[in-house]
Amino acid sequence: MKTTALSDWLQQRLRRDGSEPVYRQLQQLLRQAVISGELPAHTRLPSSRLLAQELGIARNTVIDVYEQLAVEGCVVSRQGSGTVVADLSAERLPTPTRARSARGRGAGAEPGVAAGAEVADAHGAAQLSPRGEALLAAASVSTRQWGAFMPGVPDVTEFPARTWMRLENRRWRHPEPELLSYAPGGGLPRLREALAAHLRTARSVVCEPEQLILTTGSHQSIDLTLRLLASPGEHVWLEDPCYWGLRSSLASLEARIVPVPVDAEGLAWQDGGPHPVPRAILVTPSHQYPLGMVMSLARRQALLAYARTHGSWIIEDDYDSEFRYGTRPLPALQGLDDAGRVIYVGSLSKVLFPGLRLGYLVVPPALAERFALGSAALYREGQAWQQATLADFIEQGHLGSHIRRMRGLYHERRQALLEAIRQHFGDTLAVRGDDAGLHLVLALPDHVDDVALARDALAAGVAVRPLSRYHADPARAPRGLLLGYACVRPEAIPPAFAVLARQVAARLGG
Amino acid sequence: MKTTALSDWLQQRLRRDGSEPVYRQLQQLLRQAVISGELPAHTRLPSSRLLAQELGIARNTVIDVYEQLAVEGCVVSRQGSGTVVADLSAERLPTPTRARSARGRGAGAEPGVAAGAEVADAHGAAQLSPRGEALLAAASVSTRQWGAFMPGVPDVTEFPARTWMRLENRRWRHPEPELLSYAPGGGLPRLREALAAHLRTARSVVCEPEQLILTTGSHQSIDLTLRLLASPGEHVWLEDPCYWGLRSSLASLEARIVPVPVDAEGLAWQDGGPHPVPRAILVTPSHQYPLGMVMSLARRQALLAYARTHGSWIIEDDYDSEFRYGTRPLPALQGLDDAGRVIYVGSLSKVLFPGLRLGYLVVPPALAERFALGSAALYREGQAWQQATLADFIEQGHLGSHIRRMRGLYHERRQALLEAIRQHFGDTLAVRGDDAGLHLVLALPDHVDDVALARDALAAGVAVRPLSRYHADPARAPRGLLLGYACVRPEAIPPAFAVLARQVAARLGG
Repeated sequence: MKTTALSDWLQQRLRRDGSEPVYRQLQQLLRQAVISGELPAHTRLPSSRLLAQELGIARNTVIDVYEQLAVEGCVVSRQGSGTVVADLSAERLPTPTRARSARGRGAGAEPGVAAGAEVADAHGAAQLSPRGEALLAAASVSTRQWGAFMPGVPDVTEFPARTWMRLENRRWRHPEPELLSYAPGGGLPRLREALAAHLRTARSVVCEPEQLILTTGSHQSIDLTLRLLASPGEHVWLEDPCYWGLRSSLASLEARIVPVPVDAEGLAWQDGGPHPVPRAILVTPSHQYPLGMVMSLARRQALLAYARTHGSWIIEDDYDSEFRYGTRPLPALQGLDDAGRVIYVGSLSKVLFPGLRLGYLVVPPALAERFALGSAALYREGQAWQQATLADFIEQGHLGSHIRRMRGLYHERRQALLEAIRQHFGDTLAVRGDDAGLHLVLALPDHVDDVALARDALAAGVAVRPLSRYHADPARAPRGLLLGYACVRPEAIPPAFAVLARQVAARLGG
Repeated sequence: MKTTALSDWLQQRLRRDGSEPVYRQLQQLLRQAVISGELPAHTRLPSSRLLAQELGIARNTVIDVYEQLAVEGCVVSRQGSGTVVADLSAERLPTPTRARSARGRGAGAEPGVAAGAEVADAHGAAQLSPRGEALLAAASVSTRQWGAFMPGVPDVTEFPARTWMRLENRRWRHPEPELLSYAPGGGLPRLREALAAHLRTARSVVCEPEQLILTTGSHQSIDLTLRLLASPGEHVWLEDPCYWGLRSSLASLEARIVPVPVDAEGLAWQDGGPHPVPRAILVTPSHQYPLGMVMSLARRQALLAYARTHGSWIIEDDYDSEFRYGTRPLPALQGLDDAGRVIYVGSLSKVLFPGLRLGYLVVPPALAERFALGSAALYREGQAWQQATLADFIEQGHLGSHIRRMRGLYHERRQALLEAIRQHFGDTLAVRGDDAGLHLVLALPDHVDDVALARDALAAGVAVRPLSRYHADPARAPRGLLLGYACVRPEAIPPAFAVLARQVAARLGG
């Protein structure tokens, strides 16, 4: 489609009867044109000024839509060369079901099944909804969940499986019917009490057990929070860079994502900036994800004041707060909040193991009852017998001792990785983030294509993640690699890094 | 608020700048006025004709909004006496966190925590979003999950816990890291294969393992399906009556619910009816929930033809299909679908135990890859080690033999309950539904308040559910009680029914 043709095409499709806001229509039309391939990769979109003029709409509307599409990954904005359509084929990683499902029912088809109908579906009637397309456009799911240097993966082989098995067996020998049924809204009271006690001590979180809402992890925690508190079209601030999974979740909830940069002190917003007041602000104050710095106390106070003044919700993801090597952590933002504006998000995925699917929210007292009811209505939770096992595990002190033990192991692995980096690159490549967490960021010069480097590395057997992909605008983002050291035994770190170093050196062009 | 005052109040708040459709604004304003108490219970709303005139909008818009609010439970429509505000205080069952959370931080408060701010929040700044309010307005969560005559609850004490424990222990003794990490998109391939084989044999479902998408249950299955396939504001048909949980889930997804009546053959829609073509149609063809009849083959064919012609999705909840006593079930609707329009929803909650949280979708091949990716992006699933245990359980034949065994037990309990009903009431009260499932419906005369009766029964120690609450419009619904017999031992049925019979007799006024 040519640029002038695009204006005509949009002109014909925009409904001006007030049934739907123009910005939303424009966003959906452009998104679908990108996804369907009508606007092929690398097509240059008209300037916001030109398109606004041709459609007879406000230029700010077009700017806003281009920005949203950039955040979703549909287009890429480059200074000087305008806005171009992203290459979605490279964006999406393969999933195991690909080959077969695209080809109709295949060899197992029943007589009378029309394969032709399936093919037609793939292009026409099997269209997803715009929110579904937005979700998938931003989705990025790794095919690998283990090994050097996969970030965000704890060492699950160190989990005290025998202890867990013993506690579970005690339950299985005399199963209580209540534990095998649906869980009560908010989760099993005993586990909520045990976690509240743990959070008060370990994280200075101020809470009663009723404020704890058990979930299946941070994804569900954020889903529940935004479905209960935010409306479609409302603005939500995300740190830039941030965990990529947030962008797809938020897109499917039809939140309008505003990426806000971070500096050495954390989230660096401009008061009275160009955007309306956000309904929610997602932050990782303990250990910025993925860069690793801690939000300063001054910034925390300023953020709380902002939220109090404007009535925004702060969603505090207390990511990686358990694993600090040397320094003591600042207490959670939630503990400083005297106005009930902070929703605290925690998870046992990194502390115990991800497959457990156990996370939690700490919500202000005024919301506790409604969150418990909302969670039950939306998800009909269960796994109460597993929650009971976990309560036993915490009460008997196993959680505390496991965290202490893993802190020692991870610290040792971090040192081994830092040493390997130094041996190969001396001081030429900087390491970002403070002494904490399960990964570090190896900074790279701007000319290095970190996405291509990650692909090379994976082909050579080492999984890493490119830093630019965590940014709202990958094209203009700083380059680097996230290296997870938590799920690699120390003796495996030097040889694995040697493999990676060869790929890095080749791309550095030195 | 007086009726004329209501028109003025709405007039002042409706934005006519096209930023949001009027029907949606009207619906939100009225809903909030009901929830906040500004429109107290039993207030009579102006007629649709009058309100439309006073606001200068189309009468159909008002009719549509009143219907939606009735479906959500915010208002009640009575023939002859118009539309009145529902009594929400009686609607919402208590949750354990109620007393404490309403009163600020209580005794555990830190110095400096302003209790006053919390109280202000409860009325002002802690407002939920409209979709959050819609979810909670329709929510109804039972405080009881077990015992005579709780419907929808299987006998979890008969679950072969020792067998399960043995299979799990084998996994825990040599934990594979992959099973403790996040699950692959769509779930563990081995379990998808085992379930596909089971469904092909037991339910005539036509599928390849790649079409199976594992979820945490029917709630998540329907959430995923509608987020991927339907847009906010699109119409979704629900059977009337239906499972109450669907209405709250759909409300939070901003679907526009259209209740469609059922007759002896199942869903009874009128082609070319008053509503636009639905994006999705939710049905329970094997065993209508809660009435218990089977959708006839003719109706199945007509429904498939409708979906094919109009491009609607059929969501088939194959509820209770495993438990039939005497008759053989009709094969699943999915197996008759040659156009890829059916999304099949299944769950192991009733077959094994609800707390397991394991359900699945079977989607058309053209959607399989996108559903797997969407599920991973939305929920970041795990529990792979449990999925592996379940795959072992199925492959070793335990699922099949457990179903056969429970079928015998449940049949016996059904007979015991039917006998108890006959002894107390002879033929005066009819029993609805065919010989299948985990509950039956005891029909009551129209003058009996089944909600009050259920409350009496609970106070006397017997849990039942009132049939009228499963209908979109409880005031005009037939009356009856759902009695679950599955989680009651046969010898406990006569004494428990005797308790219930006294309450029934008192309300019958005989």
